[in-house]
Amino acid sequence: MDFVNNSWYVAGWSKDFKSNITTVEMLSQSLVMFRATSGEISALEDRCPHRLLPLSMGKRIGDTIQCGYHGMTFDKVGKCVRVPGQANTPARADIRAFPVVEKNGIVWVWMGDPDLADAENVFDMPEFHSDDWHMHHGGHLHLKCHYLNVVENLVDPAHVSFVHPTTLGNASSEDVPVHVSTSENVIRAWRWIRNAPAVGFFKEFGNFHGHVDRWHYYNLHLPSTAVIDFGSIATEENCAEEDRDRGVRVFALHFVTPVDEHYTIDHWMHLRNSARGQDSASEKIDGLLETAFQEDKAILEAVHKAEQRVQPRKPVRIAIDKGPNVYRKRIRDLVDAENTEHLGDPIAPAFVYKD
Amino acid sequence: MDFVNNSWYVAGWSKDFKSNITTVEMLSQSLVMFRATSGEISALEDRCPHRLLPLSMGKRIGDTIQCGYHGMTFDKVGKCVRVPGQANTPARADIRAFPVVEKNGIVWVWMGDPDLADAENVFDMPEFHSDDWHMHHGGHLHLKCHYLNVVENLVDPAHVSFVHPTTLGNASSEDVPVHVSTSENVIRAWRWIRNAPAVGFFKEFGNFHGHVDRWHYYNLHLPSTAVIDFGSIATEENCAEEDRDRGVRVFALHFVTPVDEHYTIDHWMHLRNSARGQDSASEKIDGLLETAFQEDKAILEAVHKAEQRVQPRKPVRIAIDKGPNVYRKRIRDLVDAENTEHLGDPIAPAFVYKD
Amino acid sequence: MDFVNNSWYVAGWSKDFKSNITTVEMLSQSLVMFRATSGEISALEDRCPHRLLPLSMGKRIGDTIQCGYHGMTFDKVGKCVRVPGQANTPARADIRAFPVVEKNGIVWVWMGDPDLADAENVFDMPEFHSDDWHMHHGGHLHLKCHYLNVVENLVDPAHVSFVHPTTLGNASSEDVPVHVSTSENVIRAWRWIRNAPAVGFFKEFGNFHGHVDRWHYYNLHLPSTAVIDFGSIATEENCAEEDRDRGVRVFALHFVTPVDEHYTIDHWMHLRNSARGQDSASEKIDGLLETAFQEDKAILEAVHKAEQRVQPRKPVRIAIDKGPNVYRKRIRDLVDAENTEHLGDPIAPAFVYKD
Repeated sequence: MDFVNNSWYVAGWSKDFKSNITTVEMLSQSLVMFRATSGEISALEDRCPHRLLPLSMGKRIGDTIQCGYHGMTFDKVGKCVRVPGQANTPARADIRAFPVVEKNGIVWVWMGDPDLADAENVFDMPEFHSDDWHMHHGGHLHLKCHYLNVVENLVDPAHVSFVHPTTLGNASSEDVPVHVSTSENVIRAWRWIRNAPAVGFFKEFGNFHGHVDRWHYYNLHLPSTAVIDFGSIATEENCAEEDRDRGVRVFALHFVTPVDEHYTIDHWMHLRNSARGQDSASEKIDGLLETAFQEDKAILEAVHKAEQRVQPRKPVRIAIDKGPNVYRKRIRDLVDAENTEHLGDPIAPAFVYKD
Repeated sequence: MDFVNNSWYVAGWSKDFKSNITTVEMLSQSLVMFRATSGEISALEDRCPHRLLPLSMGKRIGDTIQCGYHGMTFDKVGKCVRVPGQANTPARADIRAFPVVEKNGIVWVWMGDPDLADAENVFDMPEFHSDDWHMHHGGHLHLKCHYLNVVENLVDPAHVSFVHPTTLGNASSEDVPVHVSTSENVIRAWRWIRNAPAVGFFKEFGNFHGHVDRWHYYNLHLPSTAVIDFGSIATEENCAEEDRDRGVRVFALHFVTPVDEHYTIDHWMHLRNSARGQDSASEKIDGLLETAFQEDKAILEAVHKAEQRVQPRKPVRIAIDKGPNVYRKRIRDLVDAENTEHLGDPIAPAFVYKD
Repeated sequence: MDFVNNSWYVAGWSKDFKSNITTVEMLSQSLVMFRATSGEISALEDRCPHRLLPLSMGKRIGDTIQCGYHGMTFDKVGKCVRVPGQANTPARADIRAFPVVEKNGIVWVWMGDPDLADAENVFDMPEFHSDDWHMHHGGHLHLKCHYLNVVENLVDPAHVSFVHPTTLGNASSEDVPVHVSTSENVIRAWRWIRNAPAVGFFKEFGNFHGHVDRWHYYNLHLPSTAVIDFGSIATEENCAEEDRDRGVRVFALHFVTPVDEHYTIDHWMHLRNSARGQDSASEKIDGLLETAFQEDKAILEAVHKAEQRVQPRKPVRIAIDKGPNVYRKRIRDLVDAENTEHLGDPIAPAFVYKD
């Protein structure tokens, strides 16, 4: 299913988790989640081990959940604490609990091997903690498609001119080359379009009238967090690539969570270096992004549907695919590493080649 | 599919079958049924042997059904009596007819080997024929789940406290032990709750105010008829277990008919020893039971859905499962016996073991 | 899937194809179609070879289509003429174009081997070009069933009495024998019903009051074009079989296009030798036929649904099935011939039989 299990995935924003029971689906598993009286968030397997009823159909009693069928009860770390009709509560009746981290108003869950869950590895960036930046938690975009298509689209600047011609892109960028760099865990694709009309987003939000220099940096943190750094500055400012903070700069963050092979949620938020503290600006950006995301959604769902058909021929790859190609290869490698065990290295020289 | 074919199943109440053609689905087969001019009910395979059109899309002509496509016509026992365009009506064109018994206002159909259909084995009980009891044919509860889950729930007193806390049960019964007895064809689970507040049903219907002794007897006649004997009596009456007729006693009958592996109909009715002849009491009981049945339906459909998923681990069994466990084993044995042929016993000593 | 690929299939009427992009599904493939500036109709594979997005979600630019995802652009014969972000347009990026013929207001597409597409073989009949006949393009009947069932029904006069008792048939024809003749590419089934009441259609359209002689000729041109020649004439006219033009005569044409194994479109139109030039007569005939087609649709969709079930026994064949039986055998032979390659004839005597 191409899921990388050993990774932190976003379940929602902090404000989405209150004391009531909520359900979250990710990586083809069902979770029941609630905020315990201590304030910590609990994420348990949403499945009573007895007759399989989702525990989310039961009720919360203190910091436990009681199954709605026969009353088996589990505490916030999944331990079975009551089996009505009998005195013992065997450990075999415990259910799985998943590590949770809450940070920067974002709730992350670890679906893989719990021994590998390290809260230090949860995504972070300095701008979350700087007064120069305004952070706004956006929405949760539901897409009926495989997550690889969603993420691939976020390391693909080339689609912007065609999918978002009136919002995030316009015709001036159609043939501007894309740079790609790849490091251990981040794939970056970017391009600058110099001395061109501002795109719809920045006309609306940045209030530009003349020609601008604009940039798109797509930073993809494996497996599925995208940091899109985009902005504009008046062309006469002669902005250097590394001086992007001088312009109107926005980070759009996408935390992409696979629900199953046919469904994905993109939890998106943004940070900006202008109009700080203005709620109306946040709302305006939300609206502009939502328009663009609906354009992506229509494309991505149609592609997913097309991929389900029998293919008459192999698809083709073109020059602009470098970012997506590297991304897909990295994911295949991660999935492969998770699903095999390496038991030893060859005694050199294990293989001898003759010329 | 875990269906026991050699058994009588309820297709509906007598009043549901008139001269018009009706369709019934059971055990993954489609039947077309109608009441012939003699008054007897006919049940035929709902499939023209020619182009497979359901005969229920044709029309009744006298005591025959004419196919709506090319006019092939079948009498009430399935014999082909006309093939338009040709003179002969070969026996190979006959369709299958299913034995039907109508008794106590209930219509039963036999889906298995017709040679084994014995009208004497149709379910009956003395209270159907006694003036001390008021009989009322209730409704047909449709459930999107496997029938074994529906029937299992009817030999499981332990769920009542949690699924029906305001109607049929309350917290006083949560840990009261359940007795189980098993005989050849009946599995019985029961418990008494002594000296406790009346449950919603009997407060409403029996008009109890003080503490009561109450009982639940779940009698399951294999494969899928449940007779639930429940009632209440004021605690000061010191009622013995065998004197239940002294209290307000109700029999809720469930005739559970599998439609297919994912759909089941529970035909339910009730008898009572009080408020005889009062239609308003029947309606009140209908309403109280329907509320409780909707609670069961929500649970059972969610369990069925959960069972369709790949399971990460084996489910657990607990002390209260004795009735359901015995029930499922009996069904497995019945299905196994139907699907294998026994050809001989070993000549003793066929097997010699050495220590 | 029992599709004959090497054949012309109707995609719609001429009036359905304008300059805007439209989509057509046939033989389990998706086409994008548009009328080029030259007036010719173009039919391309509706699939960008890059990320598989349907090209119909892109936009027409001149006589090219630009993909809505990354802007790859294809001309009206499927040649890739632009790949944004790179200079070359490799032939491997070309998409498939399908031969199209437009004739008599009907648009035909060839889905098989393009080398075998011969515009001379497109269906035609002299009445299309005669002033004695009024031609009217009707509608497009969508049916949720396999096309073989639709076409079979069009070479099956026997169903008319039972499926269309108030429109195209009535009880007088129930047992009148059907003649069948088969030539290389046409299967014909027909019958005359002499000296009987007019059927609903001709009462309404032909204004007959007394008894009539009426005929049904079902001419099926393989694989899926049906020409139904039906009409009536007053019995006292003593009409010979070959003099049908003396009566009120109608040709109902059905161009049946398989969409996939579970969906079919019947493009139907009609010609008549009376009420020429009267639009109100065309509309009346449309209405009468649509009523009858809805009767067929109900039957055919129910049959298709029934065919998806596991069958308890083999279906039976009866005397009236001659036309359908020959038709199905011919289709099996055509499909077999398309899917195998004949590499040589035996050196005589390759096989020697002994008596």
